[in-house]
Amino acid sequence: MLPRSQPTDQWNKAIVVHSGGLDSTVLLYFLIHQGFSVKSLSIDYGQRHKKELHYAQAICSALDVEHRIADVSGISSLLQGNSLTSSEIAVPEGHYTEESMKLTVVPNRNMILLSVAVGWGVSEKAHFVAYAAHSGDHTIYPDCREEFASALNSAIKLCDWHPIELYRPFVHKTKGDLVTLGTQLGLPFEKTWSCYKGGALHCGVCGTCVERREAFHLAGLPDPTGYERK
Amino acid sequence: MLPRSQPTDQWNKAIVVHSGGLDSTVLLYFLIHQGFSVKSLSIDYGQRHKKELHYAQAICSALDVEHRIADVSGISSLLQGNSLTSSEIAVPEGHYTEESMKLTVVPNRNMILLSVAVGWGVSEKAHFVAYAAHSGDHTIYPDCREEFASALNSAIKLCDWHPIELYRPFVHKTKGDLVTLGTQLGLPFEKTWSCYKGGALHCGVCGTCVERREAFHLAGLPDPTGYERK
Repeated sequence: MLPRSQPTDQWNKAIVVHSGGLDSTVLLYFLIHQGFSVKSLSIDYGQRHKKELHYAQAICSALDVEHRIADVSGISSLLQGNSLTSSEIAVPEGHYTEESMKLTVVPNRNMILLSVAVGWGVSEKAHFVAYAAHSGDHTIYPDCREEFASALNSAIKLCDWHPIELYRPFVHKTKGDLVTLGTQLGLPFEKTWSCYKGGALHCGVCGTCVERREAFHLAGLPDPTGYERK
Repeated sequence: MLPRSQPTDQWNKAIVVHSGGLDSTVLLYFLIHQGFSVKSLSIDYGQRHKKELHYAQAICSALDVEHRIADVSGISSLLQGNSLTSSEIAVPEGHYTEESMKLTVVPNRNMILLSVAVGWGVSEKAHFVAYAAHSGDHTIYPDCREEFASALNSAIKLCDWHPIELYRPFVHKTKGDLVTLGTQLGLPFEKTWSCYKGGALHCGVCGTCVERREAFHLAGLPDPTGYERK
């Protein structure tokens, strides 16, 4: 299930792409538990609210993990036509499988954020960049597909003389599996933030809230998240 | 020499990665001459001076080409250990083949800038992102290698449902060839900026100045550049 998940002398330093949401925080806990030396990177790509960045910062501070924010917000005006970087377009509500969710696609987002993480990883002589892709990632996001990640990893392995690569240990797990794993690792889920809106509580009805609730339900575990709409 | 260099109905909109230097400005002139619809993108990655960005802007303004600057300067503190983004490290002088030139390697720079260009390209429904890689690009830059570009292109083709790809028409040309081509196209070379330092004139002795001078010399054409040190 999780090949090569134990650190070795040649493979122990990780950069974790960490949004402050559920999936990437489980990944952070998992890698620390496995014994990796980790640093956390959040990306400010001009998303409509910075709430998840503050959550990421607080989690890392509690774990004594170095946390950096890569500010690429200067490019948000180039990446238009979606509700995550354009304040004029409303965040759609409902399930990810719906057509309306296409409004949450930020063009080439994964390549942009992974390329920055790899740049920092090379500077830090890290061995890999870990991110929390999982089997429930949706095909409305073309850059969540396995073939995309695999092609990008081939390029990453060639980007520098220092060897570095992607690591996606959750690629065959469901989001429900991640809730189970996080619970086993003692992760305080209420300290993670998923919601695309930036209210006081999770809205409960946007795509990522619907998915978060569903994951706890499928895992059969209590959901400590406070939702605005039940 | 330049396969598929004529626009078609399905392949006519380009984003040109345009530093304001010699190579990328020849590319801009070349694509316009071929009949492509072009937009120009410069990247502010926190380089020590912004001079080349102003040159890019002025060239595009004279050609009536839309020019945008992608500001990713917020990540320069993550990309340390090189003289282009760290003001404490001096720009080395001499030929690119020298060991000291390793100080000019910005970790994963090409993937970062191309991923942003592709993101804008997808937003604009462009068909390709053109950049001015040429046969003289140096192996001190691992991300200038053909195998890197080819792997990255495979990932770019998968990053979105909208089809987009890299285009590198100069990959088998020398920098001397580019001087010849630019001269044929009437390019005012004195309006391009190559120097890694940001003085009033090109310094004449950093890696990129040495290469610029050599290219005019090898092309057997007059070099209109004003150099500080001859």
